[in-house]
Amino acid sequence: MDFELGHISPAGMQFTELADKHSAEFATTADRHDRENIFPMQNWESMRRSGFLSATVPEELGGMGVRAIHDLVVAINRLARGDGSTAIGAAMHTTAFWYLAKLLRRPPAALGDQRFIVGLRLILRRCARGRVVACVAISEQGTSLGEPRALAAPERDGYRITGRKYFCTNSPAATVFLSSVRIPAGGERDTLGFALIPRETPGVTVVADWDALGMRASGSGAVVFDSCHVPEGLVMPGGPVGALSAEILPLTMTGALVLAGAFLGIAERAQGLVVDALSRRHAASAGPPYARPGVTEIIGENEADLAASRAVISRTAVLLDEHLDPAGEPAVPLAELHELMKEVQSANMVAKHSAIAVVDRALTASGGSGYLTSNPLSRLYRDVRAGLFMQPFSALDAFQYIGRVRLGADLGPDL
Amino acid sequence: MDFELGHISPAGMQFTELADKHSAEFATTADRHDRENIFPMQNWESMRRSGFLSATVPEELGGMGVRAIHDLVVAINRLARGDGSTAIGAAMHTTAFWYLAKLLRRPPAALGDQRFIVGLRLILRRCARGRVVACVAISEQGTSLGEPRALAAPERDGYRITGRKYFCTNSPAATVFLSSVRIPAGGERDTLGFALIPRETPGVTVVADWDALGMRASGSGAVVFDSCHVPEGLVMPGGPVGALSAEILPLTMTGALVLAGAFLGIAERAQGLVVDALSRRHAASAGPPYARPGVTEIIGENEADLAASRAVISRTAVLLDEHLDPAGEPAVPLAELHELMKEVQSANMVAKHSAIAVVDRALTASGGSGYLTSNPLSRLYRDVRAGLFMQPFSALDAFQYIGRVRLGADLGPDL
Amino acid sequence: MDFELGHISPAGMQFTELADKHSAEFATTADRHDRENIFPMQNWESMRRSGFLSATVPEELGGMGVRAIHDLVVAINRLARGDGSTAIGAAMHTTAFWYLAKLLRRPPAALGDQRFIVGLRLILRRCARGRVVACVAISEQGTSLGEPRALAAPERDGYRITGRKYFCTNSPAATVFLSSVRIPAGGERDTLGFALIPRETPGVTVVADWDALGMRASGSGAVVFDSCHVPEGLVMPGGPVGALSAEILPLTMTGALVLAGAFLGIAERAQGLVVDALSRRHAASAGPPYARPGVTEIIGENEADLAASRAVISRTAVLLDEHLDPAGEPAVPLAELHELMKEVQSANMVAKHSAIAVVDRALTASGGSGYLTSNPLSRLYRDVRAGLFMQPFSALDAFQYIGRVRLGADLGPDL
Amino acid sequence: MDFELGHISPAGMQFTELADKHSAEFATTADRHDRENIFPMQNWESMRRSGFLSATVPEELGGMGVRAIHDLVVAINRLARGDGSTAIGAAMHTTAFWYLAKLLRRPPAALGDQRFIVGLRLILRRCARGRVVACVAISEQGTSLGEPRALAAPERDGYRITGRKYFCTNSPAATVFLSSVRIPAGGERDTLGFALIPRETPGVTVVADWDALGMRASGSGAVVFDSCHVPEGLVMPGGPVGALSAEILPLTMTGALVLAGAFLGIAERAQGLVVDALSRRHAASAGPPYARPGVTEIIGENEADLAASRAVISRTAVLLDEHLDPAGEPAVPLAELHELMKEVQSANMVAKHSAIAVVDRALTASGGSGYLTSNPLSRLYRDVRAGLFMQPFSALDAFQYIGRVRLGADLGPDL
Repeated sequence: MDFELGHISPAGMQFTELADKHSAEFATTADRHDRENIFPMQNWESMRRSGFLSATVPEELGGMGVRAIHDLVVAINRLARGDGSTAIGAAMHTTAFWYLAKLLRRPPAALGDQRFIVGLRLILRRCARGRVVACVAISEQGTSLGEPRALAAPERDGYRITGRKYFCTNSPAATVFLSSVRIPAGGERDTLGFALIPRETPGVTVVADWDALGMRASGSGAVVFDSCHVPEGLVMPGGPVGALSAEILPLTMTGALVLAGAFLGIAERAQGLVVDALSRRHAASAGPPYARPGVTEIIGENEADLAASRAVISRTAVLLDEHLDPAGEPAVPLAELHELMKEVQSANMVAKHSAIAVVDRALTASGGSGYLTSNPLSRLYRDVRAGLFMQPFSALDAFQYIGRVRLGADLGPDL
Repeated sequence: MDFELGHISPAGMQFTELADKHSAEFATTADRHDRENIFPMQNWESMRRSGFLSATVPEELGGMGVRAIHDLVVAINRLARGDGSTAIGAAMHTTAFWYLAKLLRRPPAALGDQRFIVGLRLILRRCARGRVVACVAISEQGTSLGEPRALAAPERDGYRITGRKYFCTNSPAATVFLSSVRIPAGGERDTLGFALIPRETPGVTVVADWDALGMRASGSGAVVFDSCHVPEGLVMPGGPVGALSAEILPLTMTGALVLAGAFLGIAERAQGLVVDALSRRHAASAGPPYARPGVTEIIGENEADLAASRAVISRTAVLLDEHLDPAGEPAVPLAELHELMKEVQSANMVAKHSAIAVVDRALTASGGSGYLTSNPLSRLYRDVRAGLFMQPFSALDAFQYIGRVRLGADLGPDL
Repeated sequence: MDFELGHISPAGMQFTELADKHSAEFATTADRHDRENIFPMQNWESMRRSGFLSATVPEELGGMGVRAIHDLVVAINRLARGDGSTAIGAAMHTTAFWYLAKLLRRPPAALGDQRFIVGLRLILRRCARGRVVACVAISEQGTSLGEPRALAAPERDGYRITGRKYFCTNSPAATVFLSSVRIPAGGERDTLGFALIPRETPGVTVVADWDALGMRASGSGAVVFDSCHVPEGLVMPGGPVGALSAEILPLTMTGALVLAGAFLGIAERAQGLVVDALSRRHAASAGPPYARPGVTEIIGENEADLAASRAVISRTAVLLDEHLDPAGEPAVPLAELHELMKEVQSANMVAKHSAIAVVDRALTASGGSGYLTSNPLSRLYRDVRAGLFMQPFSALDAFQYIGRVRLGADLGPDL
Repeated sequence: MDFELGHISPAGMQFTELADKHSAEFATTADRHDRENIFPMQNWESMRRSGFLSATVPEELGGMGVRAIHDLVVAINRLARGDGSTAIGAAMHTTAFWYLAKLLRRPPAALGDQRFIVGLRLILRRCARGRVVACVAISEQGTSLGEPRALAAPERDGYRITGRKYFCTNSPAATVFLSSVRIPAGGERDTLGFALIPRETPGVTVVADWDALGMRASGSGAVVFDSCHVPEGLVMPGGPVGALSAEILPLTMTGALVLAGAFLGIAERAQGLVVDALSRRHAASAGPPYARPGVTEIIGENEADLAASRAVISRTAVLLDEHLDPAGEPAVPLAELHELMKEVQSANMVAKHSAIAVVDRALTASGGSGYLTSNPLSRLYRDVRAGLFMQPFSALDAFQYIGRVRLGADLGPDL
């Protein structure tokens, strides 16, 4: 019996099966990419060809039509078992297109400018034809998520964007950057915006300097925008800077939950590896694998952590699907979005902390062998640690946010 | 928005609403019963009258017809918010009748003796008329769950039962005891059995000596059986002693999960109390309740723990409902029952450990006031600690069991 | 071999031996006092008669002459094994007199008014004759340690004190209250003061309303001061309100460390009780007590926690003895006092958190038996939880304080 | 004020100062050696020249004469701040020579054969002249410490040794291997032995295959002994296989404690790095470094962990110095040695677990920057994880051992 997470929609089934296939495929090279600090361009080529990357594009535009956040989580969870680096990149890309598809389902009145609708459909279609890879370029040095310093200065027919972004997962493969920007508002509080910046835009530089403890094949280097012109339809406003507005909460909460699924996948892989190793050792020896109580104990603790992590991710995904779909987010009041985000961040903290604990115990249970570079556990130990740094919210801020929502704090302008 | 667990069946809705009503009612006296170490007979009277105690009796026999384990968990979860002691007693009673009702859904051939079927229907009907309160009398001193020393010696027309049971929650109110016994098997390994022993049977003594750190109103004292005659139809065999057999796993796993729901309820209550207190303090003062980062942090950690606990209990309950119902347990192979039990024990450990942590943090967040006897938190702190001692499996054994199942140990004869 | 903490001075040997004697004596009644919520006046009578309560009074004034903080910690540690409630009271009393004795060692110029010196000598002599029991009356509702609302309004020949104090451990036996007060300073920032208020002062009411989860025999109820006149020499200024000044840091850091010793003692007692019980069970049965891996594991974890707790308390006590003695605190710059306080709070957090963990594991290892009221573990479980609420700093603030000192924050006026 | 561990003997002062010097020197290349997976031969050359490697050789034989285990711990602690890989190698080398020097202090009668004494003096003198580097070659695959499969078959004038050892820290620089072997004893239980095998012995192969998650510059690869002849005087018997005998406990407990000091050093370094980085960030910005409560909190938790770790290591070292010196170990009964080993393992677990926690928190406090390869924290995170695998006892067995000693288990033949 297997208690892993499973799809809840037909489109999700196709997506999940594809995820399993890619997962097995990417697993064979994950250690090498890690060791050589290489961005696995061929993984992205493979996901482009298979249609994996257009899973969240509506069927009528040529995609797989996955709408359920739950199934997006599940597919990324499966993929991460084979290659965490590729999975977090794929998570960001597919969540971005899930969001764009969701925008398109809004009443036309809510979308405003017709050019925007046309642009949206165009990029979704291009994604369905395997022509687009999105990179979410949000992080900067020394600021928080909602207060970018990257400036989108209005100019004729659009904006001129200048700034430097870090931790741009996926940037080597990206054809377009979804970047947070600050739109000056005269004397008023500046506006937070999200710009789609095609890679070929003059002034874009992908630095490709990613060299980190883990997630080494994720290509999470810096991207520089130097006076990049972007047409008006490609910049979406997202409320005042410094606030988690109703505009950006649905995207950020979905993104956070999908990423939590990736870290669960890494933990599941670690547990699977060590249980298999113990069983092989068992088969080769006299005694049973569960004879050493210390080993049995932590394998048991891992199962409990995995059960809780799966359950909280799945329940929260169902919650989001109920409340955010269909086309519903303008109708969800801000306070309720914060309540949902509180649940997402709770799931996020549970899943990421327990993923770290599970991989750590798997390492312990391996005896010294998991500490060797030749053992994939030594990679998983490094990869899984990335989760707690991710925005919003890192481990330093998440419980403060959750606690404030629970205590009824007015979160409007303060985040 | 509330993320509490909710019913999934119509009968469950009625059960849950009744649970909420009783919970509010019992909450008003819980502290007094605790302080005076009194068994709250009037709570049981109230649950008898309302039909709460016959919730799991089939409708055609006069009960409420709750079949979903999920909804049994939810109702007990709600009840425990008001009074943990009464909730764990009600959990054991309703689970016992859930199990008896489930037995009745088996193909008659599987039930054997017609007298047994008649007896079952009789006790279920009597329960529906509010005439039965069951007490699960399992624990003994110095033995494990599956190896009782209480002896059921076969005699004419039945058995003669002698033994001493401890931690018999609910015994002051009980009209019948569901007791584990050892049936001698000649030279063979003895058989584990479960006997229904009516309270009026000569030789039954309810010692009523319960005086403990917490769960003081649960009446969990000793019960002595001194040569009690029980007719044959009231003793069910449950496989060889020392093993968790296919006969007893469905009952024990359901019981364990329902009890986990009770501990979640205690934790929810503690979090609710301290958030309310902080809000009142807030209303009475200048600053917001979330101003002190240490307080906000642990309120946030509690939310995450509650989210995980709710999710893992709910997901596991759905799993059990899928696999154990309807009438299906003879069809579930033993190995799969152990897999399910592994998930139940995982949920159990997560829920109980996090309930203890949540109440502890609530106490910390209360400042010194939660340490005073006048504050219900000081009772919850004692009540919630009971969970880890419960069988099967206590905190000392649960991860060993889970780990052994995961590692593929042959658990047939060894537990 | 025993690795418990031992005295480092000859006077400390006498103190420690007396502590062991009283510990054994008080252990016999601790459970009864807890159950009946009685303040053990006879324990205090016994400590008065034996000279235990004048241990920190200089020899030349008739006391035992214990100067080493280390040995004060050790004696209280031993006492707490027998009765935690009495130990925390004795800790506060003896630390208060340790501090008064220390004041007397200052150069006369630093002490100012001759009347103050005369008063000091008088109260120390009276303590040596067994005529004084001090109660530290610091806590108030809704304020922090350094910002009392109790007012000491200057009047002719002294002050008029009005306020209500909570958690006044020891108040039923007290003959004098050491109380924090606020001395108005005109338009300036008010001054924090410490007043010695004799119990017989008109306006003093000992409410004796202590009823709590644990430490039930500590008599930690409320004390009310209603326009109590106190002569000038009995009020010592302690710097501006809201700050931990150089005046009050030596007393508060010593007090905190001595109390940490008490919680270590409770943990040692719990570990001793459960190891003895397991050994008895072992003697009565076939198998060895360490046969169950879960039990052995947590007994081992407890030993490690106890070793760390003993070591950090002992090392920190030696540090304080080196830096605060003799007569030295005016010479220690404020920044260094904060560094020392950081170490004390570190020891404090380690000792209190691990004491809670140790008692909790002892309870688990006991099986269900530790949960019964008849088992002293059930009292220790409640007593040990008091530590985290104590000032300065409770668990909510301690790491913030430690972190701020380490990060070089200017703590002068901000606490 | 600095609360780091300091020397307690004059020779220890010289050793510690040298350690500080080497630490600063090695720190400049540690990241490069890690990245390039290089064994730092020049570090060893430098320690050879400075006399660091002969610190534990008696003065009369040309060494520094450090006898205090406490100071051996302190020097290695300091060295590890600069380079953990070199420190664990130096720990093993200096502990080995500490032990040989200790053997020489025994009464000649206890040492037996005069050739053995001559051999001992010779190797100690050679070490003092910088001609010897020892490698402790103990670990094998699939066996425990006390049950080597490497065979020392008696032959004329000595033994023929054959076996394969893993995790041989320091092997690239070693001139001699201290290896555990099994000496056949006819029908009796085999004897555990320790052989000194010069590197130039025919049949010795240093495989140099070390490639691991961390401690990459420690050269901990495999060493193969293929029918190596070793003269009789270089093989010391150590009691029956499978037991921790009185012969080997003093060496193993000292070795374990010295290594614990190394992991403390790594943790101190991590805390220092992140506090410095936060201060620099502070200096470059408006706000204070302690403004973010999440950061301040975990910096505070780290201080508490470091305080406990320093204290328990220091107190345990003093304990060992008191009981094992001088020349005393034959006089210490086996049961007492196990008591001491229990304390060492307690210190070991506290120090290693808290070192891992401290580095982890430092990483969290760094924000994303500590996750980058360019930040030494990312190396420390990998290095510090090695501690829990080390023998005896790894994290899987340590608490079982401690618990068994505390519960009075007869450990003679069973380990």
